[in-house]
Amino acid sequence: MKHQHYSDVNKDEVEGYSGVSLRLLISKKDGANNFVMRLFEIEPGGNTPYHEHDWEHEVFILQGKGEVKKKKGEEKFRAGDFFFIPPSETHQFRNTGDEIVQFLCLIPVQD
Amino acid sequence: MKHQHYSDVNKDEVEGYSGVSLRLLISKKDGANNFVMRLFEIEPGGNTPYHEHDWEHEVFILQGKGEVKKKKGEEKFRAGDFFFIPPSETHQFRNTGDEIVQFLCLIPVQD
Repeated sequence: MKHQHYSDVNKDEVEGYSGVSLRLLISKKDGANNFVMRLFEIEPGGNTPYHEHDWEHEVFILQGKGEVKKKKGEEKFRAGDFFFIPPSETHQFRNTGDEIVQFLCLIPVQD
Repeated sequence: MKHQHYSDVNKDEVEGYSGVSLRLLISKKDGANNFVMRLFEIEPGGNTPYHEHDWEHEVFILQGKGEVKKKKGEEKFRAGDFFFIPPSETHQFRNTGDEIVQFLCLIPVQD
């Protein structure tokens, strides 16, 4: 069993992202062969890229507020919201509030 | 894209568990073919069974405090803690505080 507090995990800047950092909480090196748990932080005014990819996201908003840009329009989010983003659906997370947005984002292990 | 607040998802009592309820946030019926996101709540004094199974857990504590019983002893937890529990490792989550414990528990899709 791996058991830690998220704040004890290294926080890495994410290259090419604006004001976004990442902590890799659970991954294949822990023996997790199916899916990976990451914790993202977005600074006020920051955002993830408007992008798409071949794998799905399962997201849970832990703190803060913002909006998700989709192919058609935006949706506001707040703490306690969750998202399932299917493969190949374009999306972007933006922090529109004045505190850090924290969210979990889980993806399949990619071999 | 599925986007909801967790409180808009039905809360179901979990049979055989003491003071435990479950909201199924993301599952195969949403198109999630790899893993399932559930949100558990444990009432003060409640607990999940002391059990083991063939699949892993990825857990993130959203609120509250308690302890995990393992084969050898207990470990305290608090909001922001996370766990990777490998397949076949015996475990139990207990609420030892005076507020509801909330945690996300993700498991692989089982066909």
